Amino acid sequence: MHEFPMAMIFPSNRVRRTPFWDGVEAAKPLALTVYNRMLLPAAFGDPQDEAEHLKRAVQVWDVAAERQVQVRGPDAAALVQKITPRDLSGLGLDRCAYIPVTDARGGMINDPVALRVDEETWWISIADSDLRLWVDAIATMGRYDVEVTEPDVSPLAIQGPLAEELCARVFGDAVRDLRFFHVTRVAFAGHAHVIARSGYSKQGGFEVYVEGAHRGMPIWNALMEAGADLDVRAGGPSTVERVESGLLSWGNDMDAGTDPFEAGLGRFVHLDRVTDCIGHAALSAKKAFIDAHGLSRAIKPVAIAGPLPPSDRRWPVTLDGARVGQVTTAIWSRAMDTGVAIGTIDRPAWGRDVTVHTQDGPRAATVRETFWT
Amino acid sequence: MHEFPMAMIFPSNRVRRTPFWDGVEAAKPLALTVYNRMLLPAAFGDPQDEAEHLKRAVQVWDVAAERQVQVRGPDAAALVQKITPRDLSGLGLDRCAYIPVTDARGGMINDPVALRVDEETWWISIADSDLRLWVDAIATMGRYDVEVTEPDVSPLAIQGPLAEELCARVFGDAVRDLRFFHVTRVAFAGHAHVIARSGYSKQGGFEVYVEGAHRGMPIWNALMEAGADLDVRAGGPSTVERVESGLLSWGNDMDAGTDPFEAGLGRFVHLDRVTDCIGHAALSAKKAFIDAHGLSRAIKPVAIAGPLPPSDRRWPVTLDGARVGQVTTAIWSRAMDTGVAIGTIDRPAWGRDVTVHTQDGPRAATVRETFWT
Repeated sequence: MHEFPMAMIFPSNRVRRTPFWDGVEAAKPLALTVYNRMLLPAAFGDPQDEAEHLKRAVQVWDVAAERQVQVRGPDAAALVQKITPRDLSGLGLDRCAYIPVTDARGGMINDPVALRVDEETWWISIADSDLRLWVDAIATMGRYDVEVTEPDVSPLAIQGPLAEELCARVFGDAVRDLRFFHVTRVAFAGHAHVIARSGYSKQGGFEVYVEGAHRGMPIWNALMEAGADLDVRAGGPSTVERVESGLLSWGNDMDAGTDPFEAGLGRFVHLDRVTDCIGHAALSAKKAFIDAHGLSRAIKPVAIAGPLPPSDRRWPVTLDGARVGQVTTAIWSRAMDTGVAIGTIDRPAWGRDVTVHTQDGPRAATVRETFWT
Repeated sequence: MHEFPMAMIFPSNRVRRTPFWDGVEAAKPLALTVYNRMLLPAAFGDPQDEAEHLKRAVQVWDVAAERQVQVRGPDAAALVQKITPRDLSGLGLDRCAYIPVTDARGGMINDPVALRVDEETWWISIADSDLRLWVDAIATMGRYDVEVTEPDVSPLAIQGPLAEELCARVFGDAVRDLRFFHVTRVAFAGHAHVIARSGYSKQGGFEVYVEGAHRGMPIWNALMEAGADLDVRAGGPSTVERVESGLLSWGNDMDAGTDPFEAGLGRFVHLDRVTDCIGHAALSAKKAFIDAHGLSRAIKPVAIAGPLPPSDRRWPVTLDGARVGQVTTAIWSRAMDTGVAIGTIDRPAWGRDVTVHTQDGPRAATVRETFWT
């Protein structure tokens, strides 16, 4: 671990603990972050060891900080469709969907996963911005007949190649038949919890939407006990693995200055079918420009020669001395034997050798076309 | 310092550094927090020593995390008035105003300070929720002719009884004539920065709205150099001092479940004059109930017998064994020789001796009518 910053997190109620905190604390996290005003454990050991373990075994992640925006009422489906250009008209009760959410300028303000809990109830599982305020303001101003709340629901992720075996032991064999981004309910201690085959890694796994904080530790403990022979460990989203795999992080790799096309999310933008979503005009103009001229810039993988300092500020990228973009996340990968990074890069530099300017000095780098795994 | 949590903050770009970071780092912060996805230094030494120093000298606080929501355009004033029940029609260009911001249910979603930078430009200096999303969604849905952005503006607070002397040395004697919550501009290195007599302590002082990140460290350094003989130090909002003084913290002491009346902010709710703000109907109903029956609960000072563990979770408050509220912030005060706390307390317990249930066990406590200073 790079030791940045050296200070502790000041205790307060504003930064909330999770229903799984007793389990997290027992596993002795080395580093935390704050996400949606909630503690999110980010490292329990060396990042290289943790990434390797994730790729061969199974980890339980406290991702309660992925808070839910609950939209309930007769107009719930209409409101959720209003906030995204992705066509959700065919989304069944047994599915969840990754949805770009843009402002009127077409900039990404969140990239959540949406699912329908029942006919009139949706959960939007959010990245680190207060999407409840956005959705609630639209509901208020648009007079949608819904209630927008943050329910007492906390996702717990089980990730890794042995996640299916572990979840089958704890929640029953039905999870084995669940397909990617499909949703069902599984009984645990008398309550039927929503579970999806999903998660913020490419190693496979599930996310359980734990309803009721008091139900958090019993599920955590059951997973840890049932997985002892599977080498189950407490973990958290792995920067090493997610960058190798090309999973973007809102707030790091994209923000309101990024449009879905630059972010590689164009396949989720259905402007012909979704004609009334917020940002439609701006996205249509961007799409027309891209169809005529191609992208001016895009989020790309960048291989960087080490050693790398902590990725705690944006690193300028230059080609022949001129700025062509910035690196937004970077970390050493022992498995790939290179620094792996994500950056927003102007088109002239795609596929080119470039220089990345870290706080410790310049590094030779290459803008790649594909992520590593 | 209570050492909670023992882990470090994981380095990332999502949690942003401030323009004053080099100064903060040189002063060796012991504890940080994350506020509006930005690092906020919370302690550089023992909280009791820091509170005493704040009351006798002067501190420079990196409060860049109080991000600005900029509303610019012909409808800026109308939009800002839409989001608050406080009547802003008389707010001159030389004033700033603390404004409750509520959702349609009348719940507090932020409690920022608003100021007019020019005829068509407002800055809303926010507490720790993404108010830009709320304001931007209202602008979009209501077709207000404005642009809503987060400008490159970072507040720096100078707080303490010697703040006026220090600011006069650095920014000129004009600051001496500035009254509380009045605003002017002061020149520094060729740029006229907005400055207000304001800040998150009751010890007096100013907040400079530093325009342009590159201008941050020159101002920080000038204050530190000019204040050497005043014993100027790097600091941050003091939990000890703010609780003694009765300054509430959004996210700690209030949230969307709190209405402005319970929060003691009724004097900023002008329902007769501001008839079209969001939440008007809900606030009117609450007001009518309170006029007829009084408040059912309110935010109150609570004196608690020590010792106190870290205030990192909400502590139930009981009277004769029945729950009557919760403590939302608590810390020992060496000056007051008691634990000082803020809680939301049901009316039957006002003025009464109660029991506060900390993670380390029950404590004798008293619900007070007034804060300590």
